[in-house]
Amino acid sequence: MNFNQELDDIVNYEAGKPVELLVREFGIKPEDVIKLGSNENPFGYSPKVNDAIISGAKKASFYPDDSMFELKDAIAHKYNIKSNNIIIGAGSDQVIEFCIRAKCRPNTKVLMAKVTFAMYEIYAKQVGAKVIKTSSNHHDVNEFSSLYDEHKPEVVFLCVPNNPLGECLDKDAVFNLISQTSKETLVVIDGAYQEFAKSKDKNKAIEPKELLEKFENVIYLGTFSKAYGLGGMRIGYGLAHPEIIKALSKLRPPFNIGILSLDAAHEAIKDQVFVQSSVSAVLKEMLRYEAFAIENSIEFIPSWGNFITFVLEEKYSSTQVCDWLLKKGVIIRNLKSYGINAIRITIGRADQNNRVLELLQEFFSSKHKL
Amino acid sequence: MNFNQELDDIVNYEAGKPVELLVREFGIKPEDVIKLGSNENPFGYSPKVNDAIISGAKKASFYPDDSMFELKDAIAHKYNIKSNNIIIGAGSDQVIEFCIRAKCRPNTKVLMAKVTFAMYEIYAKQVGAKVIKTSSNHHDVNEFSSLYDEHKPEVVFLCVPNNPLGECLDKDAVFNLISQTSKETLVVIDGAYQEFAKSKDKNKAIEPKELLEKFENVIYLGTFSKAYGLGGMRIGYGLAHPEIIKALSKLRPPFNIGILSLDAAHEAIKDQVFVQSSVSAVLKEMLRYEAFAIENSIEFIPSWGNFITFVLEEKYSSTQVCDWLLKKGVIIRNLKSYGINAIRITIGRADQNNRVLELLQEFFSSKHKL
Repeated sequence: MNFNQELDDIVNYEAGKPVELLVREFGIKPEDVIKLGSNENPFGYSPKVNDAIISGAKKASFYPDDSMFELKDAIAHKYNIKSNNIIIGAGSDQVIEFCIRAKCRPNTKVLMAKVTFAMYEIYAKQVGAKVIKTSSNHHDVNEFSSLYDEHKPEVVFLCVPNNPLGECLDKDAVFNLISQTSKETLVVIDGAYQEFAKSKDKNKAIEPKELLEKFENVIYLGTFSKAYGLGGMRIGYGLAHPEIIKALSKLRPPFNIGILSLDAAHEAIKDQVFVQSSVSAVLKEMLRYEAFAIENSIEFIPSWGNFITFVLEEKYSSTQVCDWLLKKGVIIRNLKSYGINAIRITIGRADQNNRVLELLQEFFSSKHKL
Repeated sequence: MNFNQELDDIVNYEAGKPVELLVREFGIKPEDVIKLGSNENPFGYSPKVNDAIISGAKKASFYPDDSMFELKDAIAHKYNIKSNNIIIGAGSDQVIEFCIRAKCRPNTKVLMAKVTFAMYEIYAKQVGAKVIKTSSNHHDVNEFSSLYDEHKPEVVFLCVPNNPLGECLDKDAVFNLISQTSKETLVVIDGAYQEFAKSKDKNKAIEPKELLEKFENVIYLGTFSKAYGLGGMRIGYGLAHPEIIKALSKLRPPFNIGILSLDAAHEAIKDQVFVQSSVSAVLKEMLRYEAFAIENSIEFIPSWGNFITFVLEEKYSSTQVCDWLLKKGVIIRNLKSYGINAIRITIGRADQNNRVLELLQEFFSSKHKL
């Protein structure tokens, strides 16, 4: 059977490896696996979320409230915006999909950094859009600016801070870039890791309210999957002017968020103390990875997320180190599929980091050098 | 900002009203609401599911196993097919979306019954496809056959049994229709309510294995939202030849199923005793609605689902009856948005049906006649 030719060109997203895989393939006990491959919160989630899931379980046979009244109200309250500025997605991932499908068709253009969140490109390719990338791996504002002028893309993605590399544009640089764009270009500010960035450096903080007050053609993406620790529940959001929200909502499938996920997110957003304590602990533990890299002459990219990227250059193979760690029950992310010989490690709890740093020390001995 | 013009033509799906709405708008206590508007299982779900959700809650911060190895294995086992015959969606709804997006582009054609599941048309319109409908509300095989020959659609939807009307084509009629289609046409057999239909009448039973053995160009859709009682967890599936599954998988977003949903579905499919007892109870209770309709001279459509449709003709207004019941804490579905003056009532538990039939008796008194 023939399918739309756009599909031919799509290589599926390579997800971080799940715990279940190590259980199945290597017979490792689930409790012995250290999963630092998907930038989840190693401290889990707010204890209040647990209560919400357990007491909500009895509702699992009912379709959720598709208006998402209560969760939108809580998000509106947090950001001092209105409910009609909000769309909820099954992860901010789904809002990315809505943006692409609302603005793009075959051969319209989408601009992004060379190495950034893989789903931007995959969703663009699904509709046959043309992907324009900077030549620099990182977000380079000058390059964004000149490529914007050259190609006039319909959609621009800025991942602030950038996953999987970790670098982060200053708020001023982001605002300056947006001010150069046409009102017909949708600029997507992916703030999946903003909780970490703004805690580390206030120059990186992007406040959705200020963003929406200054610009009509932007959407800010946030997620409950990272700092809030709800990766398994699939909830993210887009914040934008009502005109944009209304258009994207035409593509939102009914009941796109599970009933327990709505409750979980609602509880999670109320517990900012938990979020802040997770963020602080992660940023503190990250210093250990930086020190390790310096001691071992491994190049690393300073990170404003909850992960750190080690660039292995010609010295080691990212695939070798990832495979070696996997057999020892440690999951990190091989960035080979992003076209670079590098590894990305989610910052774990101190006990997890002890083990991972010990294993990395063992690996980065001469016997593994290329 | 301009968006793709296809969006202009889309009217969002009108979801069944949630319990929360009655709590917010009429101050009714949640436990006093009778929700028979969305064809959920009034008996909830298997007790084993509850244990799975509660013990799984601790995993909510982890992204799910995106291979869905275990759930696929369980579905494969149940239907005696292989894992590569299966794609899992956030509701079978999402698999419908994949089918449309894999096969359709602006102006390709999609064939369906005049009154059938609303998302077929909405997804088709999202990509600008042209929707061809039978003139008959019901599935009329002769009309399907002649419209197929006339329009050569890329996708054909057969909802067996049909939601929201309840009628159901015999398996032989379905197979005969498929045999008339080209190998390039994707025929979607939506079996969301098959558990009820096949329990009521074996001539309606469509076995996925037999279907896939006979035809290369079909996909069978099943869901955990109805007989399995997991509407709030968002899990459905498509069963087809590996070539079709492979193409649709290119459109599947990573982590489209929540981690607790995977566990819940896995437990649910193992407990067929619960499913059968729910189905039997629902079919038995449906007889009371049929008897009520006959006694009150209300036209009803014999149903092979877990719901019954009363056609109100010129006698009553579907909006009046639905609004009146809503204020009394009873949610049923107004089919006005489907273009017919009719109501669809999900068959509830005996205690719920007692109350609903009592209220309907009160409503269908002369004072409410048009």
